Amino acid sequence: MAGVKGETTRARLLASAEERFAAQGYHGTTVSQIVAGAGLTQASFYLYFPSKEELMNELLRRFEDRIRELGNAGEEAGRQPDGKLEAFATHSLIAMFKLLGENLNLTRIALQGAAGERIRLELARGVADNLRLNQSRGVVSPEIEPGLAAESLVAAVEYLAYRYLMNGERSVEELGNQAARLFLRGILK
Amino acid sequence: MAGVKGETTRARLLASAEERFAAQGYHGTTVSQIVAGAGLTQASFYLYFPSKEELMNELLRRFEDRIRELGNAGEEAGRQPDGKLEAFATHSLIAMFKLLGENLNLTRIALQGAAGERIRLELARGVADNLRLNQSRGVVSPEIEPGLAAESLVAAVEYLAYRYLMNGERSVEELGNQAARLFLRGILK
Repeated sequence: MAGVKGETTRARLLASAEERFAAQGYHGTTVSQIVAGAGLTQASFYLYFPSKEELMNELLRRFEDRIRELGNAGEEAGRQPDGKLEAFATHSLIAMFKLLGENLNLTRIALQGAAGERIRLELARGVADNLRLNQSRGVVSPEIEPGLAAESLVAAVEYLAYRYLMNGERSVEELGNQAARLFLRGILK
Repeated sequence: MAGVKGETTRARLLASAEERFAAQGYHGTTVSQIVAGAGLTQASFYLYFPSKEELMNELLRRFEDRIRELGNAGEEAGRQPDGKLEAFATHSLIAMFKLLGENLNLTRIALQGAAGERIRLELARGVADNLRLNQSRGVVSPEIEPGLAAESLVAAVEYLAYRYLMNGERSVEELGNQAARLFLRGILK
């Protein structure tokens, strides 16, 4: 289904599904509910997606792309002027918590099981690459092992997101600020 | 079964079970194998433990006690002279990785599911209490939130243990050194 109208309909289905999955879970959501939420007929669903599972896979792919994009912020971080680095890192971490917090159901699905391990490792690899790059720029301490530091950061962010964003006990700003404060001094030269 | 002999037999059963569980998993181990490993008869097992499950629970309780003990090392950390603090913290983290690494099967069982969440929170609470104490002593930065810092540290240690101790890709010394390096500067004043 090419064309602007097709893309809009597709986007409406994705948005409706995301909302339903978040509210009722993947298994608790039917295709009828997804199309109803998008103001479409059941038949139209299958013009865009072969199955509910394929739609979910696309949602996960998009979510993963956004996670990876944020993970790459570290590349830019090393090019910040000295005084701006902490603010930049804090901002990036807040953005990451915000993304996870706004998509708790996708976060749960994306980070569980074998797929979760893959995403986690990929994300950590991206962060590690940037730490290495920023080591060569003299911004990150040469004593840090980029792989271990990146995995520690990813594990901490993931745990804090699970622990505090589900129940709303902490804001994304609090979490981002604290994570930046905790890790930045250890990572920087 | 009181008395020295009873305690020794009990300890032999626990040691045999721990070894078997680590090699074959809890479900893959039978009571016959545990008693055979301890050089005892099947009947004697039930003089000491009502079931394989109860024996496992005792192993977990002992393991949890040792984890908690190490988690409490932070209390002592704040009383170290300035120049010794980093070495002390590094040593404590290496000891924690060592304990987890020597008991990978128990680690896996202990940290999974609802029991795991309880142990993790309890451990983090112990670490947080010590961070708070060391804040009042002026050793830990007042800008750190003890709860979040402790949970980040516990999440990172747990992830690194899973990731690297199972496959032996990193030594406990490497992991302990890096974790100390990464977290200490962020935590300290």
